[in-house]
Amino acid sequence: MSRSAEPAPRLVDDRPIGVFDSGVGGLTVLRALESALPGESFLYLGDTARLPYGTKSPASVVRYATQCARLLVRSGVKALVIACNTAASAALPELVAAHPGMPVVGVVEPGARAALAATRNRRVLVLATEGTIRAGAYQSALARLAADVAVTPIGCSVFVALAEEGWGDSDVAEHAARRYLGAIYPHPSAPDTVLLGCTHFPVLAPTLARLLPAGVALVDSAATTAAAVAELVAAGDLAPAGAGAERATRFLATDGPERFARVGSQFLARPLGAADIEIVDVA
Amino acid sequence: MSRSAEPAPRLVDDRPIGVFDSGVGGLTVLRALESALPGESFLYLGDTARLPYGTKSPASVVRYATQCARLLVRSGVKALVIACNTAASAALPELVAAHPGMPVVGVVEPGARAALAATRNRRVLVLATEGTIRAGAYQSALARLAADVAVTPIGCSVFVALAEEGWGDSDVAEHAARRYLGAIYPHPSAPDTVLLGCTHFPVLAPTLARLLPAGVALVDSAATTAAAVAELVAAGDLAPAGAGAERATRFLATDGPERFARVGSQFLARPLGAADIEIVDVA
Repeated sequence: MSRSAEPAPRLVDDRPIGVFDSGVGGLTVLRALESALPGESFLYLGDTARLPYGTKSPASVVRYATQCARLLVRSGVKALVIACNTAASAALPELVAAHPGMPVVGVVEPGARAALAATRNRRVLVLATEGTIRAGAYQSALARLAADVAVTPIGCSVFVALAEEGWGDSDVAEHAARRYLGAIYPHPSAPDTVLLGCTHFPVLAPTLARLLPAGVALVDSAATTAAAVAELVAAGDLAPAGAGAERATRFLATDGPERFARVGSQFLARPLGAADIEIVDVA
Repeated sequence: MSRSAEPAPRLVDDRPIGVFDSGVGGLTVLRALESALPGESFLYLGDTARLPYGTKSPASVVRYATQCARLLVRSGVKALVIACNTAASAALPELVAAHPGMPVVGVVEPGARAALAATRNRRVLVLATEGTIRAGAYQSALARLAADVAVTPIGCSVFVALAEEGWGDSDVAEHAARRYLGAIYPHPSAPDTVLLGCTHFPVLAPTLARLLPAGVALVDSAATTAAAVAELVAAGDLAPAGAGAERATRFLATDGPERFARVGSQFLARPLGAADIEIVDVA
């Protein structure tokens, strides 16, 4: 380092926390963040022009994530949350390297940690998109944290469409879940912990909870990611907004504000209008 | 026109017919084309890096379709088939204008014509993606062809995911179809014709046929589009391949050859390997 002095650490920092996803699924993470950090402002970017990332090649996902992060950093965020499992698994090291000094949290590791804390029989079932499973994101994270845990990954692409259709808690979701999980439960040695490794899946939690045997823990990576960011603040690694700061959440998207607002409302669990979404070009 | 002479019309033309879609769904159209025109060669392009088009804005879809068409034309095709409802509804006039003299067939109009030929109670139900429905593609085409026909459009985005998962003929598809169609059937005045306005939907035809009342016609826009191209050849508007020509189908994609091959195999109804897919950059 050629700089003669580090900037003094800030005690308070009113800049927003940047959150990005390929689309609206990451709004479940934003919702959890707003709830965990009620004094903070957020800048959310949904790369809707290029969604879904889950079916794209890792090289494309890294490029997209790099562009999203750059836009948020130029917009003046104080931290980056990768609220997209595909992007977090493909691009976390690149984003950390590209933005030195900037806290970067992905959705994969907090979920993996929470699943390890929950499992008693050392077996974890990971439900995610095909892309996240194929990339081995959760498999690697869990293996790195605990070598003795057996991981069963299942790609559940249909869940994404059901969540976006507002059918997360429906007969269709129940039949889809039976197809995905039918071969695993109710074996006595089946995983006692189910990790929802896709930001869309929290809206399927009621359906899954009904179908899973009693005692199986459902770990939601949106909630655990928000908790990880709150821990950064508690540990002094991320300065909180000042007590008197006006908080706000702004929404950016790369395409289709109407659909973003309509589908996003159910992930965010509050009304969102197309006029609330600012269209930006990240490429 | 400043040209002094038009080129003489060809009697035979061994160049391939170009077919493009946002992904693999258009392979149902390719399959129908191969069956209707067994002597022809085809060049198929799936813009998998930017799929799905159905959730993108019309301006983006026009840009993508223009780029796909340009790549196929530069590769030496003799005709263009837009095997994507979203692209056909958004970009057909632009592609006709951009490629004078080149026959361009979209999937919308042939399906609309076939539905009109099938309906007796002058009521047509259109099942398509949200984007196709929102763009009003089939509604406009049907109104233009027959002002007295009542059109009921239903966006069925979940069907796309079910088709890609290989669950077109399953209990999940049946429950999803009941949700989409439950409010319409079995009213006696319900549409007697159902138009499958998405290239993914032919694989759901068995499920839909089981659920729909007897006498309701299912019109498949893939088969009707292939028939429209065969008619161009029969009418002398598109020169056929020579009798001795070696026929071949080549596959191009913009991303993810493994997924293209795996999911595409079920739409094409024959095995397809990742090595059969050539990755190209259309942007």
